[in-house]
Amino acid sequence: MSKVEHQNSTVLTDDELRTLDAHWRAANYLAAGQIYLLANPLLREPLRAEHIKPRLLGHWGTSPGLNLVYTHLNRVIKARSLDALCIWGPGHGGPSVVANSWLEGSYSETYPDIGRDADGMRRLFRQFSFPGGVPSHVAPETPGSIHEGGELGYALSHAYGAAFDNPGLVVACVVGDGEAETGPLAASWHSTKFLDPVHDGAVLPILHLNGYKIANPTVLARLPEAELDDLLRGYGHDPIHVTGDDPAAVHRATAQAFDTALDRIAAIQRAAREDGASERPRWPVIVLRTPKGWTGPAEVDGLPVEGTWRAHQVPLAGVRENPEHLRQLERWLRSYRPEELFDEEGRPVPDVLACLPEGTRRLGSTPRANGGLLTRELPIDDLDRFAVPVDKPGTTLHEPTRVLGDLLAQVMQDTAERRDFRVVGPDETASNRLQAVFDGSGKAWQAEVLPVDEHLDRHGRVLEILSEHTCQGWLEGYLLTGRHGLFSCYEAFVHIVDSMVNQHIKWLKTSRELPWRAPIASLNYLLTSHVWRQDHNGFSHQDPGFVDHVLNKSPEVVRVYLPPDANTLLSVADHVLRSRDYVNVIVAGKQPCFDWLSMDQARVHCARGAGIWDWAGSENGGEPDVVLGCAGDVPTQEVLAAAQLLRRHLPDLAVRVVNVVDIARLMPREEHPHGMTDFEYDGLFTADKPVIFAYHGYPWLIHRLAYRRTGHKNLHVRGYKESGTTTTPFDMVVRNDLDRYRLVMDVIDRVPGLAVRAAAVRQEMADARTRHQSWIREHGTDMPEIAEWSWHA
Amino acid sequence: MSKVEHQNSTVLTDDELRTLDAHWRAANYLAAGQIYLLANPLLREPLRAEHIKPRLLGHWGTSPGLNLVYTHLNRVIKARSLDALCIWGPGHGGPSVVANSWLEGSYSETYPDIGRDADGMRRLFRQFSFPGGVPSHVAPETPGSIHEGGELGYALSHAYGAAFDNPGLVVACVVGDGEAETGPLAASWHSTKFLDPVHDGAVLPILHLNGYKIANPTVLARLPEAELDDLLRGYGHDPIHVTGDDPAAVHRATAQAFDTALDRIAAIQRAAREDGASERPRWPVIVLRTPKGWTGPAEVDGLPVEGTWRAHQVPLAGVRENPEHLRQLERWLRSYRPEELFDEEGRPVPDVLACLPEGTRRLGSTPRANGGLLTRELPIDDLDRFAVPVDKPGTTLHEPTRVLGDLLAQVMQDTAERRDFRVVGPDETASNRLQAVFDGSGKAWQAEVLPVDEHLDRHGRVLEILSEHTCQGWLEGYLLTGRHGLFSCYEAFVHIVDSMVNQHIKWLKTSRELPWRAPIASLNYLLTSHVWRQDHNGFSHQDPGFVDHVLNKSPEVVRVYLPPDANTLLSVADHVLRSRDYVNVIVAGKQPCFDWLSMDQARVHCARGAGIWDWAGSENGGEPDVVLGCAGDVPTQEVLAAAQLLRRHLPDLAVRVVNVVDIARLMPREEHPHGMTDFEYDGLFTADKPVIFAYHGYPWLIHRLAYRRTGHKNLHVRGYKESGTTTTPFDMVVRNDLDRYRLVMDVIDRVPGLAVRAAAVRQEMADARTRHQSWIREHGTDMPEIAEWSWHA
Repeated sequence: MSKVEHQNSTVLTDDELRTLDAHWRAANYLAAGQIYLLANPLLREPLRAEHIKPRLLGHWGTSPGLNLVYTHLNRVIKARSLDALCIWGPGHGGPSVVANSWLEGSYSETYPDIGRDADGMRRLFRQFSFPGGVPSHVAPETPGSIHEGGELGYALSHAYGAAFDNPGLVVACVVGDGEAETGPLAASWHSTKFLDPVHDGAVLPILHLNGYKIANPTVLARLPEAELDDLLRGYGHDPIHVTGDDPAAVHRATAQAFDTALDRIAAIQRAAREDGASERPRWPVIVLRTPKGWTGPAEVDGLPVEGTWRAHQVPLAGVRENPEHLRQLERWLRSYRPEELFDEEGRPVPDVLACLPEGTRRLGSTPRANGGLLTRELPIDDLDRFAVPVDKPGTTLHEPTRVLGDLLAQVMQDTAERRDFRVVGPDETASNRLQAVFDGSGKAWQAEVLPVDEHLDRHGRVLEILSEHTCQGWLEGYLLTGRHGLFSCYEAFVHIVDSMVNQHIKWLKTSRELPWRAPIASLNYLLTSHVWRQDHNGFSHQDPGFVDHVLNKSPEVVRVYLPPDANTLLSVADHVLRSRDYVNVIVAGKQPCFDWLSMDQARVHCARGAGIWDWAGSENGGEPDVVLGCAGDVPTQEVLAAAQLLRRHLPDLAVRVVNVVDIARLMPREEHPHGMTDFEYDGLFTADKPVIFAYHGYPWLIHRLAYRRTGHKNLHVRGYKESGTTTTPFDMVVRNDLDRYRLVMDVIDRVPGLAVRAAAVRQEMADARTRHQSWIREHGTDMPEIAEWSWHA
Repeated sequence: MSKVEHQNSTVLTDDELRTLDAHWRAANYLAAGQIYLLANPLLREPLRAEHIKPRLLGHWGTSPGLNLVYTHLNRVIKARSLDALCIWGPGHGGPSVVANSWLEGSYSETYPDIGRDADGMRRLFRQFSFPGGVPSHVAPETPGSIHEGGELGYALSHAYGAAFDNPGLVVACVVGDGEAETGPLAASWHSTKFLDPVHDGAVLPILHLNGYKIANPTVLARLPEAELDDLLRGYGHDPIHVTGDDPAAVHRATAQAFDTALDRIAAIQRAAREDGASERPRWPVIVLRTPKGWTGPAEVDGLPVEGTWRAHQVPLAGVRENPEHLRQLERWLRSYRPEELFDEEGRPVPDVLACLPEGTRRLGSTPRANGGLLTRELPIDDLDRFAVPVDKPGTTLHEPTRVLGDLLAQVMQDTAERRDFRVVGPDETASNRLQAVFDGSGKAWQAEVLPVDEHLDRHGRVLEILSEHTCQGWLEGYLLTGRHGLFSCYEAFVHIVDSMVNQHIKWLKTSRELPWRAPIASLNYLLTSHVWRQDHNGFSHQDPGFVDHVLNKSPEVVRVYLPPDANTLLSVADHVLRSRDYVNVIVAGKQPCFDWLSMDQARVHCARGAGIWDWAGSENGGEPDVVLGCAGDVPTQEVLAAAQLLRRHLPDLAVRVVNVVDIARLMPREEHPHGMTDFEYDGLFTADKPVIFAYHGYPWLIHRLAYRRTGHKNLHVRGYKESGTTTTPFDMVVRNDLDRYRLVMDVIDRVPGLAVRAAAVRQEMADARTRHQSWIREHGTDMPEIAEWSWHA
């Protein structure tokens, strides 16, 4: 551990120090200006109340530290011709990152109406946190960013995601000491065990200890330094410290710290790439300890502000009304000496610009942060190569995810050179029966390997860590920098990343509205080990609500698929892996499941998203008496079994079977791009016949999607209603009234006139349910009539 | 750091070693027996296929380690008369905890049909993971547990929650090395900075490194030991190691490790309590390194199993069909020498029972794990003491959460001696304007304190850490051990704990069905800084979907309240703080909000959950022409403003205003205990008049709740539709079509005959929206007619 603390570093010449400080002061000025000023941006006249924004919004506290990091990153990028990207964890400091990209020119190139001159500066200030302007955080609107500065915890996993398979890239990552308290951030430090120094780039975490959160000290800032060093070494790092509040000393120390860190990174990479070193390296981390709100007002109204939590947002809050605050603000802004930093036209002077790299080396202009520019088509073979043969529906069984595994293995193999495809999962790739993918690539692992281990590979592209948060963060970072991937997860536990997917969907929604942001590969979830087949685990592992969660979000972004068998899963997977700018959720089983459709049929069915399975129904060209709808593998099986029972017991009943793969098809077209028109919907479900719909998840979701349909009052939905435990597969559907017998009873109860005519059939169904209850209590398995059931017309 | 590793410890006599080992072997036998045996529980006859369960489900891998810990906890509890509780993080090892509680007698006392004899053992085995039996994980059904063994990551925060304000308690906490990779677990190690050695009990983490997850090695098990020690020291611990696979040596080392750890804990507590030591102590942690599936089959079908991931679930999977597997299982089970462990009647012999403590000292019988037995009524003063005076509705403003703060401060003060009430939050207590609570208690903080800090208190009961996961886990542990609390959180970021609340609701649902589990205090959320008032933060901070999430869960458990002003918030808070076994979600604003109801009116309105505000409408005893419904503070204000506009512009229109506080009132009574009958619903909303409903969150939720109502086709809902950014408060409602002008237009569009008659009014409303657009673009603030609006009849 080397410590660089106020020491007389000789890294910087006095001239460099002067120009770096000029850049930093300019960035500080511009950050504060964005929070406060509507007019008079260069303070060419005395500051008056009418120059001040009526609503003061933004976060000053973190900004000077971010400005320091941006300034010094500029220096090393230029000096070393680095390909670099920075993740701004404390992205609440939006004014800082915006200020820096304006200084380097990236901002004006992205937004030509915000020129790099006095008028542009005025617009820059005005637009910040102003209606119709830009958000107060780092956001998709911010050039050079792949990381929203709202919800905290994901900076480091995003950084690693960006670094994977980018061997020439250095990803700096500022981690705030507030963010460092979150679970996702705490877990992601162990990403050091997954970063391949040969094929991946480097991540340089910069732990910024400014000491305070919104209203409290931070845990890490109050550790004795030796204890903090223990912690960082325990994470696999070697800490380099920069501590101080004297700008010149901190500039010198920061420059030396960056040089030391980058030298070490270069040495680590050289050792791995040229000398074949295979031991897990100890990567550097910079610990930067500077005051919160540094260079801002030291005291306001008699209370300390600089260096305390009071600097978190707007240090001087009453500027328009309070002349003393106004004077204090003016003193603060003038302390940066703007007249030295900007010329007559308001352009940054050469000293300010001296540290800047050029072109796409600039942090605000790197295509790494606009990954769609770099995204290539994935090579996906013809699906016929992986399809299962289906001569007759419902007679053969396959595990759908296992079949998908072969497809993923092919994509892995065919991207072996390009290295732009990853499969991530929380220790579940094999459990989810995707293990064929290991034929394409092993599991990334830089820690110790024992002889008994399987598929561990220092250069593998399958990522497994028992942290859904880290998996999600890695994949987001990977996609946002122009690559592809799939996240396979137990259905119930994907709720762990509910809030992360919220943020990613928000990011995509906003990005789609920005013409300069190129579309990136979609974030694809495969949810398996689902609610109906948690034989080993029971109630705690049963939750199908992620679909409900994502369907609350922007319909432009969200797609949900429930393929009912292996070939439909292939077709859906092919589609989502080729798509852009979506969050795709696929729910599919891993247990043996009947094959219903041939590959050709599956392609057509999935393209339509929903369709009549006429071979399964008993219509004879006329109107059906009842429609059996289904979505999901287990509900589809129960509906088919119910259709078969109806055919046997009530042969003159005209039954239509409709399977839905793309659940948004049920929504009105005005509410989702995939929604059906009423004409289409009525064509499938009729406008007036009873519809018994067996759905994979919570039944009310179907009502929420279809409540505007003409025939909604005839829609009767069965699904999971939180009645779960450790039991047999069929008992699960019985407990939730989704079983074939219950569905037949529903038909009899709902089709006019059947109640009397089919009373005996109804009783037979009720008896079968009773028979089931006693059978499982005695045998612990499903009845032979269930276990051995298969489809026959 | 002291290391206890295979050394010749003298802690145990040979006799003690023999009896402890007997207990451990018995527990191992019973754990394996539960996974495999339907009959022949004592192996009194040769094992045959028909003795084996038809479906082999369960997790063997972690069980022997848990059995070791249980055995040795028994020893120290007995030797030291400890008041102890254990959190079993690797709760997948359900068979282990069940086995141990059967051995100690707790199981049979809880479930008298499972006696501590041969027949009881047969039933114990059969019921495990069997339909109608018990789940495979540690669960509410398991005596002595407060921690479901399903979703991983919460063991340590539950342990700290249990230890807070229980000075006499030692909470042992087994952390699996799989679980240790999760974010929530990683964050919760820093709970050491919040544990008060004076008023809180101790937490003794036992990090169990068995080396593997489902299919991968674990990160922590593959760290060099020095690096792991760094990490644990960085968390604030002092590690004690136990490593081995020879039972006798591990028994000796474990006994010594427990003694060392408990001696240190006693010394720490003595120093703090008697000597006034105020430095944060370095608490012990035990690192237990034993093989996964220890004592199980070493090899199966030629592949290593013991000590590898292959031991995770069922090591021998084909026992019924494969005679070699059957023989291997029999050898394995007989290796524990059951004939030495159980007598003729199948009762554990005295040697097995020798280590056991008695009565409520037993881990399976401690009331700490059945917290409802210990829960007392909270002292809550008459609400009139905190109420804001309301002479006329809608003329005065208060910040509702600030008013609530006074109530919470009183409860804090009045529990100063009892110490059974905590307020938790992720650094947001003051931001959420609850700071009055600091008058009742400071913020818990054991780390360094600087002169500038405020409200930090080594003995405080307000808990703030920037980790929603840790907050949630702490509070769950606190409630489950018989205390009370409230979690205040930014509305959007409560999604971070979606999956945790799922598990807690499942726990409560199951617990309510177990007569021996006494009701515990409800888990109360105060969601504030809500979607409509994220002025500083914008889109990333806007998500009202937590309500949708929890309403998917068991209606017996879930309650959601949207009080529209300060006094209704007081009434709701009073209710939820007194309630039991619920998850209560309160959504309430922190910004100045009109006072609508006096305290008396608020009490009546909240008791009804929904009601007509006749003072706000313009009915004259007859049927209304239109109903304006509202739920939430901002929608209520917009509906009232719309009612006022209607009164002015269309004075002959009969408008009814209905406010809903308890959102489940909208559901059918059959679906939620708070649901209205159709008679009640139609009485409020009519069966045939247009209803314009302004809702706080996603509008389709209201449809999902009310789709069965007669008048549903006339229900038109406005709410948040993911149209967010950094802008003014009124612009947020305009962007989402929830504003007063839009609501008036909706009324005109929906009431038959109004479209023509009120065309000019409609145009005026549309013009006001346009005026708004230009005003905010120019001024950045809301128009005076909005900013200065107040209610007048």
